[in-house]
Amino acid sequence: MPAPPAKTASGRFFEDFRLGETIRHPTPRTLNSGDASLYSALTGARFAPQSAETFARAIGYPASPIDDLLVFHVVFGKTVADISLNAVANLGYADCRFLRPVYHGDTLSAVSQVIGLKENSNRQTGVVYVRSRGMNQRGETVLDYVRWVMVRKRDADAPAPAAAVPTLPEAVGAADLGQACPPIDRAAFDGELSGSPHRFEDFSAGERIDHVDGVTVEEAEHQTATRLYQNTAKVHFNQFSEGEGRFGRRLIYGGHVISLARALSFNGLANAFHIAAINGGRHVAPLFAGDTVFAWSEVLETAALPGRDDVGGLRLRTVATKNRPCPDFPRREGEGYEPHVVLDLDYWALAPRRPHAPAR
Amino acid sequence: MPAPPAKTASGRFFEDFRLGETIRHPTPRTLNSGDASLYSALTGARFAPQSAETFARAIGYPASPIDDLLVFHVVFGKTVADISLNAVANLGYADCRFLRPVYHGDTLSAVSQVIGLKENSNRQTGVVYVRSRGMNQRGETVLDYVRWVMVRKRDADAPAPAAAVPTLPEAVGAADLGQACPPIDRAAFDGELSGSPHRFEDFSAGERIDHVDGVTVEEAEHQTATRLYQNTAKVHFNQFSEGEGRFGRRLIYGGHVISLARALSFNGLANAFHIAAINGGRHVAPLFAGDTVFAWSEVLETAALPGRDDVGGLRLRTVATKNRPCPDFPRREGEGYEPHVVLDLDYWALAPRRPHAPAR
Amino acid sequence: MPAPPAKTASGRFFEDFRLGETIRHPTPRTLNSGDASLYSALTGARFAPQSAETFARAIGYPASPIDDLLVFHVVFGKTVADISLNAVANLGYADCRFLRPVYHGDTLSAVSQVIGLKENSNRQTGVVYVRSRGMNQRGETVLDYVRWVMVRKRDADAPAPAAAVPTLPEAVGAADLGQACPPIDRAAFDGELSGSPHRFEDFSAGERIDHVDGVTVEEAEHQTATRLYQNTAKVHFNQFSEGEGRFGRRLIYGGHVISLARALSFNGLANAFHIAAINGGRHVAPLFAGDTVFAWSEVLETAALPGRDDVGGLRLRTVATKNRPCPDFPRREGEGYEPHVVLDLDYWALAPRRPHAPAR
Repeated sequence: MPAPPAKTASGRFFEDFRLGETIRHPTPRTLNSGDASLYSALTGARFAPQSAETFARAIGYPASPIDDLLVFHVVFGKTVADISLNAVANLGYADCRFLRPVYHGDTLSAVSQVIGLKENSNRQTGVVYVRSRGMNQRGETVLDYVRWVMVRKRDADAPAPAAAVPTLPEAVGAADLGQACPPIDRAAFDGELSGSPHRFEDFSAGERIDHVDGVTVEEAEHQTATRLYQNTAKVHFNQFSEGEGRFGRRLIYGGHVISLARALSFNGLANAFHIAAINGGRHVAPLFAGDTVFAWSEVLETAALPGRDDVGGLRLRTVATKNRPCPDFPRREGEGYEPHVVLDLDYWALAPRRPHAPAR
Repeated sequence: MPAPPAKTASGRFFEDFRLGETIRHPTPRTLNSGDASLYSALTGARFAPQSAETFARAIGYPASPIDDLLVFHVVFGKTVADISLNAVANLGYADCRFLRPVYHGDTLSAVSQVIGLKENSNRQTGVVYVRSRGMNQRGETVLDYVRWVMVRKRDADAPAPAAAVPTLPEAVGAADLGQACPPIDRAAFDGELSGSPHRFEDFSAGERIDHVDGVTVEEAEHQTATRLYQNTAKVHFNQFSEGEGRFGRRLIYGGHVISLARALSFNGLANAFHIAAINGGRHVAPLFAGDTVFAWSEVLETAALPGRDDVGGLRLRTVATKNRPCPDFPRREGEGYEPHVVLDLDYWALAPRRPHAPAR
Repeated sequence: MPAPPAKTASGRFFEDFRLGETIRHPTPRTLNSGDASLYSALTGARFAPQSAETFARAIGYPASPIDDLLVFHVVFGKTVADISLNAVANLGYADCRFLRPVYHGDTLSAVSQVIGLKENSNRQTGVVYVRSRGMNQRGETVLDYVRWVMVRKRDADAPAPAAAVPTLPEAVGAADLGQACPPIDRAAFDGELSGSPHRFEDFSAGERIDHVDGVTVEEAEHQTATRLYQNTAKVHFNQFSEGEGRFGRRLIYGGHVISLARALSFNGLANAFHIAAINGGRHVAPLFAGDTVFAWSEVLETAALPGRDDVGGLRLRTVATKNRPCPDFPRREGEGYEPHVVLDLDYWALAPRRPHAPAR
């Protein structure tokens, strides 16, 4: 009798990826009110349309949408076992677009296509570029993004494919924003209930906002959140092995940092109710349990959306720090970053336009 | 170009409040099964009607109601950013009445009216009295209560309004109880399933009950609970700043202590299934992560409800301690409190009357 | 006036149990999406039918079922206050069968019958055997199992009943498996989505699988999970008293260890989607917060299910360890256990048969 086939997944190494191949990821996941409540309770998210059915319906959603970042994390989580289980580093995101709203009861699944491969000169590792898509139960794409990770080779001597590096946009264009946002009744967007009187027109490029508040992260919180997303990356959960690793402790999932920064940004950006796209992001430094996260944002650009007079796009750079308030907007210094910075995220959020602003 | 308007909320100071003004609070919140499950898992709440659809329907509810204290915390949480962000101390509650049941799918919003203002003699702070109301998506008031907080002045020299202190009832009257409780089929109230054979008539004024069990609180638990309520008070979340503050650590939201004490009280008061009113409460001392909460209750008064023969009112004083069991019912000693006491809560709960008790 | 009746439950002692008596347990509990999300987020459970409505319906379930172990824990939790509040040790489980699927919205209640009693020779304690049943809102049994616990006597001199020890099966027979599993469309069981290509026929007795991953447990996680199950055993929650107890710390509910091991077993057993029965289990050593759990499994036996060609039974022994990876499959050594072992569980899981396997 032959030996039984290996049952345990050990993840792909660099030489296991083929340019152009498509990988369907386990496990589909139905998102419902339990997930939305947990997401809110673990991150502090409280933007009005995601918080209240009444608010969402008043402005034009058929129902309260699932938080954009919860959608992102659930899709991302599915890709981990196939793409980044043997990753040394998560290098970047690009061209991330939210294409359809996700509602309670929708089931998400994920597929990735390998769009780039480049062995590193040390031959120990290589960079894998994938375009991942999240789909709902009708097969409609709800999220589409590129990420690239540095992955170990199983065998340094294994031959590497010819280098192929995809061309990626520096930022998503305004014409590509808003597909996941239904037409919004801007007159019905109640600024007292949403938490801010500030509309799209009240923001201008170069403006900086300190989000003031700080939130300390506990091991139980980030582990519970990361399991909610079915993200099984070992570094987040296993103190036994991480205790002997590079940092001596469990690393907090970078997506949890994004969610915390986004939740903190409510104080100043309460009406930036929907993330339409993520242009890029860097996890500048690791975050650990016991650290306190602060954040500030800069408006990089404002953009009308072609054909829409209900919402406008705010291109935001949100910077998160650990153990350092941000009244002076700490950022990149020279070649590196100010030492407390943990996240530098560039994304598009949508905000309602003034009720009586002229249509463009 | 003028400077952009300030986007970040820094909270109101004492001189920003005007007697009689009404403040609509962000953010409305739809409560659903995820919130109920989290509330139960974080606090230990397990009263039968809130735990089981079958039990609730059998006794006369159209559906399982949301736990009264979850309703309270969600409404309270909304008021924090507008009322108590710059509070030095949460001084008290009064005249808190639960007026309608809240069911899964209901959306709560909150409004407060300033009903009293009194500058302190040091001119650094003042006391603000607000009457806050929680409303459902139909605009019906589900909760109405008064609280008063000591709030810092932005500028000690700012002129203060004439002192106005509202007259508040020492306790809610029996005639005002039970509006959030539908008619209960007392014969269908199954004491084996609810966890106790004791009916309203089995309790008498002066009776004391030790709830026996103790529960240790973790940082991740109280933070997650407090975020569930969208309560953003800084002292609960920010170890970076609290570490340099009065206590050197994060303070647990007093409402979480109330919920823990209420959950512990199941052991002895399992049939006191609904909180109808809170007469007053004092957070006698702070609670911190790592502390173990115990509780005991005294029956202060029993009261028939005018026109109702299904349920009766138990006026209870529930005292919670930290790191001290309560077999000897620790309470106020002389002018102060026994040193381990953290909470002294005076409230009305409803319990079913005996199946065959004569109607009054 | 007579003294009021004692209101606080102090649990039954050995001499309070009567052979043959039936105990109805509080509190019924409606399981819904909040419970399923929390269970998944706290344990890491991610088997496909429980994770996604679409997957469940595609293979033949009318809806996504509640995780089997969540059902077990909720039923078990109800029995604690009546059966094991004064237990010295939880000695074993046997003949545990899952008899009907449980869906979101179902309400579970529990009943136990005393089927054995045997005083220990020291007369301080005795062993109580109960058969516990979990029922849904229609009164249908969804779970049936035997457990036995060592319970303290209130009074060592109290007379003991004649010893009665039930005869228990060493394992549930294949003919008794599968009642909680509807007919499965094995062709529709998508191995890419479920996370594994391996079908029932790919497993053989004697095969061992290292589940590789480790997960560190935090106090907030096991407490929250155990409260989700309304299990009120003191040892899990009360650091004040446990700090002076045998271990100096809170003990993690053994069922949480089972759930963690089951979740870890996804890596290798992703298609063993349903637990049909638990033959027995030993909590070999206690687990504490901060420990990291690993697991491995051995296939003890494979069995066709009489009359069914859709699924087959895998009798599995899953062993969990703390702070010790399992590449070498640590297990019993001589009379005792390898020192890091915490759990030794013997159960039946069902896996889909090959799409084109001949019917038996």
